[in-house]
Amino acid sequence: MTHEIAVIPGDGIGQEVTPAAVEVLEAIDAVDFDFIEGEAGDAVKAETGEALPEETRELAADADATLFGAAGETAAEVILPLRQVVGSFANVRPARSYPGLDAVQPDTDIVFIRENTEGVYKGIESEISEGVTTCTRVITEDASEKIAEYGFSYAKQNGYDDVTIAHKANVMRTTDGLFLGAASAVGDDRGASYDTALMDALAMHLVMNPQDYGVVICPNLAGDMLSDLAAGLVGGLGLLPSANIGEDNALFEPVHGSAPDIAGEGIANPSAMILSAAMLLDHLGYDEQGDAVRTAVETVLDSGPRTPDLGGDASTDAVTAAVIDEL
Amino acid sequence: MTHEIAVIPGDGIGQEVTPAAVEVLEAIDAVDFDFIEGEAGDAVKAETGEALPEETRELAADADATLFGAAGETAAEVILPLRQVVGSFANVRPARSYPGLDAVQPDTDIVFIRENTEGVYKGIESEISEGVTTCTRVITEDASEKIAEYGFSYAKQNGYDDVTIAHKANVMRTTDGLFLGAASAVGDDRGASYDTALMDALAMHLVMNPQDYGVVICPNLAGDMLSDLAAGLVGGLGLLPSANIGEDNALFEPVHGSAPDIAGEGIANPSAMILSAAMLLDHLGYDEQGDAVRTAVETVLDSGPRTPDLGGDASTDAVTAAVIDEL
Ligand SMILES: CC(C)[C@H](C(=O)O)[C@@H](O)C(=O)O
Ligand SMILES: CC(C)[C@H](C(=O)O)[C@@H](O)C(=O)O
Repeated sequence: MTHEIAVIPGDGIGQEVTPAAVEVLEAIDAVDFDFIEGEAGDAVKAETGEALPEETRELAADADATLFGAAGETAAEVILPLRQVVGSFANVRPARSYPGLDAVQPDTDIVFIRENTEGVYKGIESEISEGVTTCTRVITEDASEKIAEYGFSYAKQNGYDDVTIAHKANVMRTTDGLFLGAASAVGDDRGASYDTALMDALAMHLVMNPQDYGVVICPNLAGDMLSDLAAGLVGGLGLLPSANIGEDNALFEPVHGSAPDIAGEGIANPSAMILSAAMLLDHLGYDEQGDAVRTAVETVLDSGPRTPDLGGDASTDAVTAAVIDEL
Repeated sequence: MTHEIAVIPGDGIGQEVTPAAVEVLEAIDAVDFDFIEGEAGDAVKAETGEALPEETRELAADADATLFGAAGETAAEVILPLRQVVGSFANVRPARSYPGLDAVQPDTDIVFIRENTEGVYKGIESEISEGVTTCTRVITEDASEKIAEYGFSYAKQNGYDDVTIAHKANVMRTTDGLFLGAASAVGDDRGASYDTALMDALAMHLVMNPQDYGVVICPNLAGDMLSDLAAGLVGGLGLLPSANIGEDNALFEPVHGSAPDIAGEGIANPSAMILSAAMLLDHLGYDEQGDAVRTAVETVLDSGPRTPDLGGDASTDAVTAAVIDEL
């Protein structure tokens, strides 16, 4: 069985790390892929006026899964509609520290399960009179239950004992009250143990005691901020993969952006993108191969060549070759 | 001239740290205070049905300034209306690390200037159909300009070179677009230098490189989360004071809550509350006395008795006495 994968490198270092991930996937003998490339981002917008051309949307819609690199200024115009195209309801963001790498908190292993369809991301905004604007934050019971089901299942399948539901229900009593109530009910129905945490206090505790946390189920924008916070704890965005999971489609992308400051130099760290490809393997049912890729990346991070962001002077290609060697 | 100060200890350790701050203020010979106590919080709600009785509101409204300790479950019912009573538009939250104290990032000195009247705190929520709820986030040009004026002035008066405007205008184009535009225009009009930062990326950078930041001007909820994040960097909430600044009234409170786990034992760290009293002194025009209190707290933190949260075994009273000794 051949899996059709849409490959959208995008802008900046997306053009460098995406081919690296494709090479790694090609090196996995047990799985057959058909890679089809599509355009998105600043460059294609400059040419055609559209950051996400219709062909690219269709490509992602029809593929078995998508690998997305990064976009520059147009990031929101590209990634938000792409998440919709694949029907993503869960944005899965593991943040772990690796032995041997500098980290603010070297003992971190947290997976953020971020609701990915609503909250302030619904795009319902208006200027209701001059100088007075509103954004309508939407929280539904269905989406809250769905993300909680996903989060509790994820914790169980991946052996995380601590589940935390993040919210701000003391201020947003109705919306986050609903999120908290619906997510807690899912935990209760499963007989699962979990904690709930105000998102502000949680930000503090994550900084001080990340080892106390496992899976964190969050509303959309809170998940955006808290997962970036955790990226800071483990050494920055260069190591963080993510998955956008839909009912029968999915998109995988590094948490980092297009990094225009180092783009074109061939020195971008491909780890986050390769780890995103590992999540793609898991998603297609190849957990063993996903684990093998993660182990290879870990080995290289521990004792192989390193790109400049990690204090080394290796190129993207050298790191990618080292990962493939380890497979 | 005698200054009338409303004193609202509230619940839990609020009952222990608030008297400590009052003692410190009483020890300042150059300034005359008249302290009038009011009730608020869980305990008074249990008795009377109201977490914030009308007398307490009036007390805070009529006083020259208010000292507030903490409230328990009713925190939002107490502090949000109290902020309105004093007309607070700016919530000022300094987060600094102290020499000799353990901190995740020992080189932190950041002041969050949090917009304090709007955003999701407007309280405009509804269940628009079963299981579908909305919260209307409001951002106005006036409030955005006002907080930016306050932030840039604060940076200048207090010698901070780095000013950062936090926003999420790539997603909330209209509301945070307005916040970002209005705040940037204030900076431009003043010929001030400043940066702008997406709040998610900022969360990461604050964790990794807090020394790069000085004053951070934020929308309401972002300021809530980012300032708690920074509390985690400097060793927890026990050290963070805050001011809620209105046009001609103000309220001062520690960032920490009522800490029911240690309440009643006489071991709560009074530093955050005493530092809040120092901000009250600044606000009334007694900068010299405010500085003296800060220096005394620093000296005690460095080499005086410490409460258990900082690894010592001193009581609240012993720390308070040591601070007064240093004055
Ligand atoms: C680019 C932006 C729209 C996006 C988001 O807010 O989701 C990004 O920050 C992310 O986390 O992938
Ligand atoms: C208690 C709560 C309403 C409050 C807030 O969200 O402002 C608290 O978190 C704070 O930061 O003072």
